[in-house]
Amino acid sequence: MPRFFLPDISAPFLTLTGEAAAHAKVLRLKLGEEVTVCDGRGTECLCAVTDLAPDRVSLVVRARSASEAEAKVRVAIYMAYPKADKLEHVIQKATELGAAEIVAFPAARCVSRPEGKSLEKKRERWQKIAASAAEQSGRGVIPKIVTLSSYADALTRAAQADKAILFYENERARTLRAALEGSWRTVSLMTGPEGGLTEAEVAQAREAGLEICTLGRRILRCETAPLCALSAVMFAAGEF
Amino acid sequence: MPRFFLPDISAPFLTLTGEAAAHAKVLRLKLGEEVTVCDGRGTECLCAVTDLAPDRVSLVVRARSASEAEAKVRVAIYMAYPKADKLEHVIQKATELGAAEIVAFPAARCVSRPEGKSLEKKRERWQKIAASAAEQSGRGVIPKIVTLSSYADALTRAAQADKAILFYENERARTLRAALEGSWRTVSLMTGPEGGLTEAEVAQAREAGLEICTLGRRILRCETAPLCALSAVMFAAGEF
Repeated sequence: MPRFFLPDISAPFLTLTGEAAAHAKVLRLKLGEEVTVCDGRGTECLCAVTDLAPDRVSLVVRARSASEAEAKVRVAIYMAYPKADKLEHVIQKATELGAAEIVAFPAARCVSRPEGKSLEKKRERWQKIAASAAEQSGRGVIPKIVTLSSYADALTRAAQADKAILFYENERARTLRAALEGSWRTVSLMTGPEGGLTEAEVAQAREAGLEICTLGRRILRCETAPLCALSAVMFAAGEF
Repeated sequence: MPRFFLPDISAPFLTLTGEAAAHAKVLRLKLGEEVTVCDGRGTECLCAVTDLAPDRVSLVVRARSASEAEAKVRVAIYMAYPKADKLEHVIQKATELGAAEIVAFPAARCVSRPEGKSLEKKRERWQKIAASAAEQSGRGVIPKIVTLSSYADALTRAAQADKAILFYENERARTLRAALEGSWRTVSLMTGPEGGLTEAEVAQAREAGLEICTLGRRILRCETAPLCALSAVMFAAGEF
């Protein structure tokens, strides 16, 4: 069933305009057809199309419910700014895989360090990618894209979760499985840039309260590591 | 440490030529520098550079051992031919994540169905992508790329593993976790094309002995599903 996001879905009648109406046109919605409209914060409505105009689609709400596609655990991805369009790839895939938010931050070996206006433009673009992936994967929540301007801020924020884990290629012994023992509802998964995190950064993370773990004996690319970890955490949480 | 693959590493002295020598040039190897040379089947040598010519690098073998980066379980990815370059993406990532082989097959809703000479060219290209990803991720084995010409062949081949699992978006109850109970060494993970597998194909898979499982309540893209499943299986196998 087609899925749309609207910030406010509390009224008994809803209207799709702008990009949502354009998307509805592409989908060739028909009168009477059922669609899901979601507020992006976990509530959704089953609606039927009551009117179709070139730039607006009118809907009547038939039922309202909590979204069923959201994970019971809240997993945040913390990724050091990578080169090129790798962050876009991770945002799309992490949204499909059920991440609650994706936080990008600078690290010593980051080649790309977007700042100021350029960063705000990028963040808007990344948020749109998350919204589009949320629509396509049937999610009830659009993951929030957060951009931080310092590694220290990223550590402080990440450490607030029940389990805060940094993956480091030189860590051999401590496994994610061991780190996930016990009960938890929120997890932060942090990974470094292409060149890896420095030893000093890893020490700083440990001091901030993060656990340092391995993702196995193979070296994963910076865009593969967070998605591998997220898949494993969702599996460990009993999602599939 | 730089890593090269050579089909035969049994001699006490080895020589890199062709693409491997070109790659060595890019890496600016120096006399005396240590490199790993691997046969791609799980054995590797620690070598030192003894001579550098423009088109050949001479090495002396210092030690020989089994590769440590290989998973204890053997996981095969079975993926229906996707559109565009998605299979290349999956081959690269599945190699990093430790897959033993990647098998591509046609399904009813595949838009792309490469055949004959065009397929053999593509298979060679895919095998090179696997070799390059194996080098970069430090693997001791290059996953084999297998192309099959029928869905029935894919089912018969996949069903030979200790656990043969097909992921289907309409399956809600049976989890991967449940399917992995008990002991196993070999796993086949099968996923469909963009449009999904047909009900008839899923029934056929069940008859062939595959278990039908869910990957959770979110709809994953055809290139995300196999990598999510592979990450979870490696986690379940105690790899990280």
